[in-house]
Amino acid sequence: MVYLTRKAEFSASHFYHNPEFTPEENKRIFGKCNNPHGHGHNYTLEVTVKGQVDQRSGFVVDLKELKEIMNREVIEAVDHRFLNKEVAEFHERIPTTENLAITIWTWLKPKLNVAQLHRIRVYETPDLFVDYYGEA
Amino acid sequence: MVYLTRKAEFSASHFYHNPEFTPEENKRIFGKCNNPHGHGHNYTLEVTVKGQVDQRSGFVVDLKELKEIMNREVIEAVDHRFLNKEVAEFHERIPTTENLAITIWTWLKPKLNVAQLHRIRVYETPDLFVDYYGEA
Amino acid sequence: MVYLTRKAEFSASHFYHNPEFTPEENKRIFGKCNNPHGHGHNYTLEVTVKGQVDQRSGFVVDLKELKEIMNREVIEAVDHRFLNKEVAEFHERIPTTENLAITIWTWLKPKLNVAQLHRIRVYETPDLFVDYYGEA
Amino acid sequence: MVYLTRKAEFSASHFYHNPEFTPEENKRIFGKCNNPHGHGHNYTLEVTVKGQVDQRSGFVVDLKELKEIMNREVIEAVDHRFLNKEVAEFHERIPTTENLAITIWTWLKPKLNVAQLHRIRVYETPDLFVDYYGEA
Amino acid sequence: MVYLTRKAEFSASHFYHNPEFTPEENKRIFGKCNNPHGHGHNYTLEVTVKGQVDQRSGFVVDLKELKEIMNREVIEAVDHRFLNKEVAEFHERIPTTENLAITIWTWLKPKLNVAQLHRIRVYETPDLFVDYYGEA
Amino acid sequence: MVYLTRKAEFSASHFYHNPEFTPEENKRIFGKCNNPHGHGHNYTLEVTVKGQVDQRSGFVVDLKELKEIMNREVIEAVDHRFLNKEVAEFHERIPTTENLAITIWTWLKPKLNVAQLHRIRVYETPDLFVDYYGEA
Repeated sequence: MVYLTRKAEFSASHFYHNPEFTPEENKRIFGKCNNPHGHGHNYTLEVTVKGQVDQRSGFVVDLKELKEIMNREVIEAVDHRFLNKEVAEFHERIPTTENLAITIWTWLKPKLNVAQLHRIRVYETPDLFVDYYGEA
Repeated sequence: MVYLTRKAEFSASHFYHNPEFTPEENKRIFGKCNNPHGHGHNYTLEVTVKGQVDQRSGFVVDLKELKEIMNREVIEAVDHRFLNKEVAEFHERIPTTENLAITIWTWLKPKLNVAQLHRIRVYETPDLFVDYYGEA
Repeated sequence: MVYLTRKAEFSASHFYHNPEFTPEENKRIFGKCNNPHGHGHNYTLEVTVKGQVDQRSGFVVDLKELKEIMNREVIEAVDHRFLNKEVAEFHERIPTTENLAITIWTWLKPKLNVAQLHRIRVYETPDLFVDYYGEA
Repeated sequence: MVYLTRKAEFSASHFYHNPEFTPEENKRIFGKCNNPHGHGHNYTLEVTVKGQVDQRSGFVVDLKELKEIMNREVIEAVDHRFLNKEVAEFHERIPTTENLAITIWTWLKPKLNVAQLHRIRVYETPDLFVDYYGEA
Repeated sequence: MVYLTRKAEFSASHFYHNPEFTPEENKRIFGKCNNPHGHGHNYTLEVTVKGQVDQRSGFVVDLKELKEIMNREVIEAVDHRFLNKEVAEFHERIPTTENLAITIWTWLKPKLNVAQLHRIRVYETPDLFVDYYGEA
Repeated sequence: MVYLTRKAEFSASHFYHNPEFTPEENKRIFGKCNNPHGHGHNYTLEVTVKGQVDQRSGFVVDLKELKEIMNREVIEAVDHRFLNKEVAEFHERIPTTENLAITIWTWLKPKLNVAQLHRIRVYETPDLFVDYYGEA
């Protein structure tokens, strides 16, 4: 049983706002991130899959296939996008790093057949990242 | 004569659009960056100053002062901002990395008294950066 | 359940010495780290907390609050300090990376109320780090 | 119980080929990595050991000893080598990152006496790495 | 006048050998790099161009075009290759980092029309790099 | 003419204090760095040499020789040292990053025969570095 991790980058913008909060609450809780014009990040995504090594190929997963799935299911949806306005999952949910990690898990989980999805890690900046293992 | 460089980070969003171009030209020249909703980056700014080392302090520049100037003149203006809409210099000029470097030079140049501004470097991503030395 | 990690840096000096060892043992076991003048590092601290995502904020923890706690409980105690002489916990205990990680856990654990402390990681250099999960 | 990780680098070349595959299968499955002349990487190895902290030294493991074991058992065997031709374990097995991680585990496991081997991580590039915990 | 730098990565293998040297000279001068099986690296290439910023686009160079030229003229020639055997320029010349930088300059110089090639930087490892400015 | 740069790391401690300043001046000018117990850093040193490429070896400089000179002349003098107390050059001069870069230049300049010393870069942290080219 080995765990293989592949990274990818995307650039996106977002802002944090809960319409059920008062303006003061939005300001206090979200600070500069409450700016409705949005601001952005170079996100780094790490996708970790686990499984047995195929003795014939030496692979736990076909890397070209994994890369294609990551591009098709994640990068095309979020890269160079304003997450709040252009990604359906974030029309209502706030696009925090936490919610991004969970959303990317739900996108990738049903598409990975050979190896098992183990962890989604999303870096918002080099100093802040979130891990999600599909745990309730 | 030594050269001292200090880094700082900011997160901002932008898009590329020239109203004098046709929609097709904007799409062809700017590609995904033409999306009017904007997208964003974690920018890294490097400010390099040069000068003689003060024999009493061992410093070419007071680092606390340099940091304050960088925060006040640059970071407060661009961090967590949509550059096209919220920074006056980019209402007309396209906020490319090239123009960002030149703009930051014009902001910092008159504020640095002790040491001389030598270079502005702006990383849009870890794989793309622009240097400006104030050369015409 | 998500895991959020925030990094911080501090610069400190230390040396390794056990008064119960002979000078030869101290030299053999600690090598260059036995120099009583001390030497130093740019340490990187990673604090990981875990918990449920608050549906109203999208956060597992208030980041500003986490940053304040990390600064107040850890960074102020160790940054720009000689650990052996200026931090009470290391008057007797040797300030190895292992003991730094355990000590920082004991400082932060009682201060984190909302989210649960999951892991302390301390990098002494980019090539050496220690993880502590509060396990006996 | 703490976990200590030490990194090391090595440069090696390899190629992927299974003589039981047809040339077309080798090409389709391994792509550019099927080139029999080989190509190479700067690999990064992370070795993680776990154990109790020795109260006298503050160490979970003697770092000089760990470094010597890593150099003797791993780096000398693979650094500046063509893995397929010069490392016995890869005369038959394909030197994928997965198989490298497993092989390094089998080399180090019997040599580490004081602390327990916990994880082998091998980076083939900064964007691709494999973890192995000795799990069947 | 601004300077724009774009990075790219490639993986290749090589070895150092001069047929005019005796075996002892080859061993003494090239050490482990003299192994004829080759070994490899993840090289990082930085291409810097300079020029005036086009006022209509805000660009010093069309980034998509620069990326295409770098891929077509450099990456396709060297990525996943054994440089000594598969790249004509290194059948006779030793593929040191110095010679790689000079060779890449000669490949790119005639292909860059709009902006002027300023510098080629090649990292063999994160700790070793060579710069070439086309100076005799 | 090519420029080759090699990096090395060292860990050292230091503090900033000018006996001709009043305690208040020392505190105001040097802040936390005035702590006489010292604090420390993982310094990164970059040594750049320039010269013609030797056609027989493909080298601008013998890398093993350069590494030996850097270790003997610089690393052994400063690694795991308290710069103010243990390095003669800093008994009087304040060991700022500026002065470190100049001092390392004076150590290396007379020892490099084949290639010419071009630049000394010293990183005190990843966010702060000084360049010295031997300019008066």
